[in-house]
Parts: sequence; structure tokens; C-alpha cells
Amino acid sequence: MQGKIYLVPCPIIEDGISSLPPATLEVLHTLDHFIVERARTARRFIKESGHPKPISELEIFELDKHGKVEGLKDFIFKTKKGSSIGVISEAGCPGVADPGADIVAIAHREDIDVSPCVGPSSILLALMSSGMSGQSFCFNGYLSNKKLALVKQLKTLESIAHKQKQTQIFMDAPYRNEFLLSTCKDSLRPNTMLCVAVDISASTEYIKTKKVSEWESAEFKFFHKRPAIVMIG
Amino acid sequence: MQGKIYLVPCPIIEDGISSLPPATLEVLHTLDHFIVERARTARRFIKESGHPKPISELEIFELDKHGKVEGLKDFIFKTKKGSSIGVISEAGCPGVADPGADIVAIAHREDIDVSPCVGPSSILLALMSSGMSGQSFCFNGYLSNKKLALVKQLKTLESIAHKQKQTQIFMDAPYRNEFLLSTCKDSLRPNTMLCVAVDISASTEYIKTKKVSEWESAEFKFFHKRPAIVMIG
Repeated sequence: MQGKIYLVPCPIIEDGISSLPPATLEVLHTLDHFIVERARTARRFIKESGHPKPISELEIFELDKHGKVEGLKDFIFKTKKGSSIGVISEAGCPGVADPGADIVAIAHREDIDVSPCVGPSSILLALMSSGMSGQSFCFNGYLSNKKLALVKQLKTLESIAHKQKQTQIFMDAPYRNEFLLSTCKDSLRPNTMLCVAVDISASTEYIKTKKVSEWESAEFKFFHKRPAIVMIG
Repeated sequence: MQGKIYLVPCPIIEDGISSLPPATLEVLHTLDHFIVERARTARRFIKESGHPKPISELEIFELDKHGKVEGLKDFIFKTKKGSSIGVISEAGCPGVADPGADIVAIAHREDIDVSPCVGPSSILLALMSSGMSGQSFCFNGYLSNKKLALVKQLKTLESIAHKQKQTQIFMDAPYRNEFLLSTCKDSLRPNTMLCVAVDISASTEYIKTKKVSEWESAEFKFFHKRPAIVMIG
């Protein structure tokens, strides 16, 4: 029988194994073959999950930083001989703001079954907690790190958010949070709702939705270098 | 100390308690107060989860079908006196294509802390398994059930999907899947990728991405009345 590709989420916080469902760990523990974003952290995660086999007996294929796929297709083809493969990204759900989609696309083309496992996604957790529309929403990934281009992007997203009642989700590298949020405050309309969700699922978790005009610039410095999801609606 | 609002996902399949992480059940089991989409199913879920208290001792506030909020604000204000409240929707994550956002919005306005728990979301699981971009994606909810309007919406979404390399996610009532998918086949470009994800997480799960031209109309009848997420990219 042909193997499957399983999408296996991993925790988004330190010591976060309890954020994974038993059903996900059960799948993980049946797997001997993995395609991972980074081998070192994936090995640690697999070990901490209580995988029944010694890590040294597992076959782990590490994705190249630049998405190079040499040898990847051969590895995926192990499913044709019956081995199932787990795909694990650096944090959260593979394929969502993380590598993994290319592997799944190959699987579909090659008629290999794909199955997703439940786990944490900071994007989804942030959206749930924002109080903004979850009937229509858009994840836009990283916006520009250049001021003028960013202002233009933010105004476009704000306009879509209002016209279509569609929550606009985005993020930046944690060290640029202050830049991103100050630019939001300076360029968005005072009545636009702005949600900042930092350190999701950690003990330092902070999630707040306020009007742009209600945010104080001084508050943004508390978000420095903390993983954040930003939403407007 | 003031209580919090916890967003508590529930299973998306029958007997799906194992799709919920221990950390989520741990939070659920500390709660005595709930705002729920439907009391009957929420009670069953809470009981099956192994909640330590008899269901009859829990305070459960059922949301009105029409989103009427009479008494809702008073119930939310129990947090001011120290009671935390769990929000539970009919299936999956509250606030994402499900009620819950209004409650969270009230919480933010009233300075009540909100915290999300990890659990299954068919939208996210479908996206992970599609092989389409998870760097940029849009959930559009239910599209029109009128043919002409639907064709127009699909063409607009297709155009955005291609121009912005943004996966477009949508759905319909399960009994209208054939209508939705046939309209996709008839109105989208042959090379557009179309993913159909049905019965996610169930034993009958089926997830397939193919070019529009590769889908056969006859295949769509197998999706009749099965919960489906549809994506184009």
C-alpha cells in the first residue's frame, strides 16, 4: 500500500507538547520518515513527543533555506514504496506562513494522499481572539519594511477591511514590531480597529483590540522582539 | 481577580475528543460558565471531555440563532466578579466562520482578557493540505447561491488568486457542493488549481488539488452533502 504525506504541526512555545492533541501524536509516532524545515529542532520535538523509536533510526530530510529541492522528490517517492512521511515546520502548522506547500503540491501531482493533523497556528489563535470578523479574513504575510511602501499597503488593506468587512492579518519580524505598529498608528484612520496579539499561548500572552486612536505610541515598545500578529478591521 | 474569556474549540468530527490538546481540556475543565452556539451539543461535548463537575452545575448561556444579545452582556460581566467564561461554537474554533467574534469584541471594549485555546479548524486543515500558498490566503465564507452572481464572484476570486498569488478559500452548504463545484469547472480557467477538501479529519477524509480542466464533473456527485472546503490558486 502507498504511504501518505502527513502534515504534523509542532508547538509554538517552549515546552508546548501539551498543545498537541493525542490524535496528532498518535500519527507522529507511527512515522519513520520526515521532511523538516530544520533538522535540529525537529529532532528535539520528535524526541520530546515520546516517539517510540530512537531518533537515530528515523530518516530526516532537511529543507534547504532557499527552498532548493534536490533529492526532495526522491524522498517524497518513498511513499510509493509504502513509507508515510511527516512534514514538520519550525513552529506551528506546516504550509501556513511556513514551508510545506511545495511538498504537498508535489504529492497532489503524483497522486499521493495528503492528510493534515490538528495543532497550533498563531494566525488562527490571533484571529479567534481579535473580536474581528472570522466570516471573512485575509492573511497577507509580511508587509514591506520600507516606510512609504508600507503606508501604501496599510491604506490598501484598511480600505479592503472596511469595504468588504474583511479582517486583514499581517506580521513582521519581531524586532520591527514598533516600526510596523507606529506606522499603523500614523497612517490608518482613527476609528479603524487595530489588534495586536503577542506571545500567543505563552504565559506572557497579550492580546488587545482597540481603535487606532486609542493606542498610545509608548505601548508599542512593550512588543519589541516579541512574536506578534497584527490585524485591522 | 477578574475572570477571562477563553475561546475553546470543539471537535469537528464525531467522537473527536482526541483532536483536542491536553492544554485545551485543562482550561475547559477549570470553567463553570459557558457561552455556546447550541446548548445541547455543547453540553454533550463538555461531558465527553471529562469535565469534573456535573453538567447541571454549570452555567450555560445559549446564543440566539439571530445573534440576539439580550442578557449576553450581563453574562459576560460575570468575569468582573472573577468567573472565567468559555466560548464554544458548534464545531471547530469559535469566531472563525462561526459565532464568537461579537463576544470577544465586547470583552476587548470592557477590558476583559481574552485567551485562545488550540483545536481543529477545517479551514486551516484544508489550507495546509491544499499545496496552495499559505503565505497569503483569504477566507471568503459562503459565496452566492445564485448562478450568475456566483460566476462573477468566482471570476473575481480567480483574478485575485493569480495576480496576488493568494489562495482563495470558500465553502457552501454541503447539499450545494455539486452546484458550487460545477460552476467552478464551467467558469474558471482550465489551468487554475482547484482543491476540494471533504470530511476533514474523518475516516472518509478526501483532499485533492487538480487543475480545473482535470476535474471531471462526474466526480462532484461524490461530494454531495459532505462538509467541504473549496480553494482556488
